[in-house]
Amino acid sequence: MPKVRFRDSQIEMAHGAGGKASRRLVEGLFAPLLYGSLQESLGDAARVEMNGTPIAMTTDSFVVKPLRFPGGSIGELAVNGTMNDLAVAGARGHSMVVTFVLEEGLPSSILEAEVRAMSNALRRAGVAMVGGDTKVVERGKADGMYITTAGIGIPLPDLHLNPRSVHPGDKVLLSGPIGDHGITILLARGDLELEADLRSDSRCVLPLVEALVQEAAPGVRWMRDPTRGGVATSLNELARDCGLGISLLEEEIPMRDAVRGACELLGLDPLHIANEGQFVAVVAPDFADLALHALNNAPGGEDARVIGEVRKEPANAVLVSTRYGGSRIVDMLAGDPLPRIC
Amino acid sequence: MPKVRFRDSQIEMAHGAGGKASRRLVEGLFAPLLYGSLQESLGDAARVEMNGTPIAMTTDSFVVKPLRFPGGSIGELAVNGTMNDLAVAGARGHSMVVTFVLEEGLPSSILEAEVRAMSNALRRAGVAMVGGDTKVVERGKADGMYITTAGIGIPLPDLHLNPRSVHPGDKVLLSGPIGDHGITILLARGDLELEADLRSDSRCVLPLVEALVQEAAPGVRWMRDPTRGGVATSLNELARDCGLGISLLEEEIPMRDAVRGACELLGLDPLHIANEGQFVAVVAPDFADLALHALNNAPGGEDARVIGEVRKEPANAVLVSTRYGGSRIVDMLAGDPLPRIC
Repeated sequence: MPKVRFRDSQIEMAHGAGGKASRRLVEGLFAPLLYGSLQESLGDAARVEMNGTPIAMTTDSFVVKPLRFPGGSIGELAVNGTMNDLAVAGARGHSMVVTFVLEEGLPSSILEAEVRAMSNALRRAGVAMVGGDTKVVERGKADGMYITTAGIGIPLPDLHLNPRSVHPGDKVLLSGPIGDHGITILLARGDLELEADLRSDSRCVLPLVEALVQEAAPGVRWMRDPTRGGVATSLNELARDCGLGISLLEEEIPMRDAVRGACELLGLDPLHIANEGQFVAVVAPDFADLALHALNNAPGGEDARVIGEVRKEPANAVLVSTRYGGSRIVDMLAGDPLPRIC
Repeated sequence: MPKVRFRDSQIEMAHGAGGKASRRLVEGLFAPLLYGSLQESLGDAARVEMNGTPIAMTTDSFVVKPLRFPGGSIGELAVNGTMNDLAVAGARGHSMVVTFVLEEGLPSSILEAEVRAMSNALRRAGVAMVGGDTKVVERGKADGMYITTAGIGIPLPDLHLNPRSVHPGDKVLLSGPIGDHGITILLARGDLELEADLRSDSRCVLPLVEALVQEAAPGVRWMRDPTRGGVATSLNELARDCGLGISLLEEEIPMRDAVRGACELLGLDPLHIANEGQFVAVVAPDFADLALHALNNAPGGEDARVIGEVRKEPANAVLVSTRYGGSRIVDMLAGDPLPRIC
């Protein structure tokens, strides 16, 4: 791969969207200066070893707008998001820390509601919050609150995730319907004349990951939670990292009618819409049935599907075949059609 | 101690100042809902055990204004601050993660300068950055950039820090002159008709902590880096936690003339001013000479002093004796005379 240089003169919303511009910023500026290993920095969580004990570590900031929306809130996302990054890196969350950047004048009741949401999400995820920090900035220098979490976890046994172990013929599994989170946020902002009975899919995916791993660990090659940039961006990153093609069957991709309808109206590709409670897994063909069965039998995994497979061609790209026999290449997200989604 | 309740109706700047209001927020809202153990949450870093391996973990957000100032910048603070929290909790930093909340329109050159500052600080501290995240918010919804770091570290051997192990007769050591960081930031904002040849003391204190621990580990009972709220707030927290009194000799507290002068002019107590490269240690009397000698002989520890001792009275308070025979109780910081200092 040619080296990326970061030549953009200033920061735009797209640099935070998780797509092409974000990747340029990470690969062109952060990785060469901050991260020793580019590969590690781009996964969902890093692996470190401390006194011989392997540990997974990850962090995320949350700036979602509005702070509360159907199905979740910034506090819940901040816990689930970090636990999910650990889960899809093959680790069970152990401990978290949190920081708040609060805007002067924020009603305490709003902060308390988010602290309670975090508390509930921690209990559901079975993880401990062990420390934190709070800063306050003047009115107008933040937007209510920004939350950052970092987490460490213990790797699940018998799991060896690596995009380079992905082979042609491997199956691509998706845990459930796509786009619920992104479209929910879009509608919750009220800028559009659209209404739909839709909720964010915000949840901790660890129970699903554990069900999958318990049945099919030796065959699980790669996982990712398709948040910003959606399924298409996650799978394009995989295609690039393994040098193969990802071939998806559009009719197999689970999606609610409300999401499909909103995307059609707004000219958005649902494969680019953020999810907060789903994950994609690539599984060796011999383990695909076992893996799907394990997911479908776990609570919340009923809608999991095999949505495609890995092929030699088109190399480094994601191809979606429609039910009418057509096909299209779906690239990573470019620009930022839905800012501040998480 | 009576239970604290958080009844403030909205967030004020003082809730981020590290003093009384911050403590009310942490003890009244965050600790009961988020942190299992109040004690742990209020230290500089938490201790967790993963598969039998003890690990220290900490996090901090940085919103300092301006982003650059004599002697340092937000990027350098973000690395040193988290490494220092680990160091004074008795741990050597091992790995860090970082998130950026960037304001749309931020010139890339400003971001790059901070990434380079972080890179240099990482190299000096001998720690690896293993991952990160970036979010972008609209113009006016941040102030250039906010940085959050989290770090994990390995406990130094033979060190058992606990405020409850502090006894009357123990000596209080300070690593160097106080107030340089806070006053530098104040002057760098240019709101005052004041000039002084002063630089932030931003640095990684781990080498000093290690020098101290190597010579005097069995006698080292407690350490803290007196950032927001200054030496007075840190020592008031200790006094409260151990139920004893901390008696300081004002003339022994190292301080530059420029800091003394600015504080006098502005009516500030230098004991409330933030430091970013100092720490306070409480050491058993038998080890005090060894400890001081170790610090004075380490590069950057030449100005370390014994500034006072622990006494039975005044219980739960900090008493400062002046060179003229007078004395005054110095409380924790109240209000926020210097907002966004780190």
